[in-house]
Amino acid sequence: MGRTLGTAEAQQPPVSGRFAIAIHGGAGDELDNITEEERKVHRKSLAAALEVGRKIVAEGGKAMDAVEQTIRVLEDDPLFNAGRGAVFNAAGTHELDASVMDGSTGQGGAVAGVTTVKNPISLARLVMTETPHVLLTGAGAEKFADAMRDRKQIERVPNTYFSTELRRLEWEKEKKAQAAKSHRGTVGCVVCDQHGNLAAGTSTGGLTNKMMGRVGDSPILGAGTYANNATCAVSCTGTGEYYIRNSIAFHVSALMAYKGLSLDDATQHVIQKVLPNDIGGVIAVDGMGNISMRFNTSGMARASIDSSGKVVIELGK
Amino acid sequence: MGRTLGTAEAQQPPVSGRFAIAIHGGAGDELDNITEEERKVHRKSLAAALEVGRKIVAEGGKAMDAVEQTIRVLEDDPLFNAGRGAVFNAAGTHELDASVMDGSTGQGGAVAGVTTVKNPISLARLVMTETPHVLLTGAGAEKFADAMRDRKQIERVPNTYFSTELRRLEWEKEKKAQAAKSHRGTVGCVVCDQHGNLAAGTSTGGLTNKMMGRVGDSPILGAGTYANNATCAVSCTGTGEYYIRNSIAFHVSALMAYKGLSLDDATQHVIQKVLPNDIGGVIAVDGMGNISMRFNTSGMARASIDSSGKVVIELGK
Repeated sequence: MGRTLGTAEAQQPPVSGRFAIAIHGGAGDELDNITEEERKVHRKSLAAALEVGRKIVAEGGKAMDAVEQTIRVLEDDPLFNAGRGAVFNAAGTHELDASVMDGSTGQGGAVAGVTTVKNPISLARLVMTETPHVLLTGAGAEKFADAMRDRKQIERVPNTYFSTELRRLEWEKEKKAQAAKSHRGTVGCVVCDQHGNLAAGTSTGGLTNKMMGRVGDSPILGAGTYANNATCAVSCTGTGEYYIRNSIAFHVSALMAYKGLSLDDATQHVIQKVLPNDIGGVIAVDGMGNISMRFNTSGMARASIDSSGKVVIELGK
Repeated sequence: MGRTLGTAEAQQPPVSGRFAIAIHGGAGDELDNITEEERKVHRKSLAAALEVGRKIVAEGGKAMDAVEQTIRVLEDDPLFNAGRGAVFNAAGTHELDASVMDGSTGQGGAVAGVTTVKNPISLARLVMTETPHVLLTGAGAEKFADAMRDRKQIERVPNTYFSTELRRLEWEKEKKAQAAKSHRGTVGCVVCDQHGNLAAGTSTGGLTNKMMGRVGDSPILGAGTYANNATCAVSCTGTGEYYIRNSIAFHVSALMAYKGLSLDDATQHVIQKVLPNDIGGVIAVDGMGNISMRFNTSGMARASIDSSGKVVIELGK
């Protein structure tokens, strides 16, 4: 009768040698006016995060582990609007959102409005594995973090840990303009591992000067993050309201499943036909290891690598 | 050159004489064991709410107005798990979620985790019309309600207003079983008005004994609520986690738009092929005034009426 397949490991198909990983660090016109030196810093940060994920999948590790570890690096990097370096909300504090989805199980987890969790992406993963729910918000998410205090991946910090001088200046500017537009620097990661499993994750501080309690697409499965082994893994960045109203991450998968589009045709369709211009971008991988990174802003910080060794690290068009 | 079409009214197509409205009051096996007297009470409540919406669209009113006013009646009725009669969370209090979406504009609004707003559906509509955001949660949503205090539709109540003895007993039972399953009584409404415009709305107290801060599908556009004049308006009820992970409300629309399914084939597909059995139901209308109400639980409280005068008021299969 053979042994019982009691663990996820036991059910893993054989290692294929083929993998793909893509990350984004936000889309928007803010990247137009940065100096060459700043460009170098951005590329270096993207390359460092990508390498963490690449190493995990190249060694046969799991897509979900690569997503979590890669996004933790991006969260810890003050350059991006996720974890340290998150934008200020209208109240002058930081509320962070993150989500993950595992395409091999269809399970997902997310947190919204957390204020003291150093790495929201790891708390999102624990919502997936340790609760019957998929989305915990605000004080309830913090309480869950309290309950997970023994996990080494859950470190707590004062809210001011997330503050950087650059973000404070951006906030002062948006406050004067009475706007909440800037969305530079949301981060995301999509992975196809050598077992053919897909996973996606997204983490953000949201919009600068956003209303307290505002939740965008990043912690919403189907909007900012989606993964399904049968189609694709997707992570989005941009003005989240448009992504929620059009279920953009799931939309890419639906175009593949129900209209027969290829991965790249599907991402192009949502970017060109579904979303208004100048709203944001998406990154995606499919189970064949194809990669697509599309946006309708003037730039999107992005990077990818696959098992053929092809590397992309770009900021502009 | 003609006059500027400056208002939504000015852009309304002529009245067609055709309309459709459907509502649900939750899906689940709890309806199996109620008495004949309780059945009568349920039917009477559904009929009363349906009549409020019917009157609005029969007189040429807007789909979105019918959705809001119908759901307010269901929220005020202690029988349903929305507004008064909302379930208790693990902390013994009430956190309410609601959303609306307007298929004529693609706009939507939602609130999650509100604790003092008598009619969350009306606050969700104001998020749509009065903010640049689509989802406000917790204290931020309460703060927005403060800012909307002059609107007559925003009445504030102490959290205990939502408590009923029945819900307290349910909670005691779930606490003992250490479960968070019961989802009886989420309410929703979908409308096709005589202008061919579609709208959808959903309102809930969530799962009995849910973790604090848990958000289900009801306030998530694309998951629990979706409307698009080109396809359909959808409202869902059931264990929200499955609806979020599978973008169920948008999924129905995608099956129509990208796979060419009819409204009823699309709702049947998600109920039979996408969702596990015994999870919940969906109600939907399309722009032709067709109505579909499908579920994979043993029952779903539901009612509908269209311009031909055909009325359905059912609890079981």
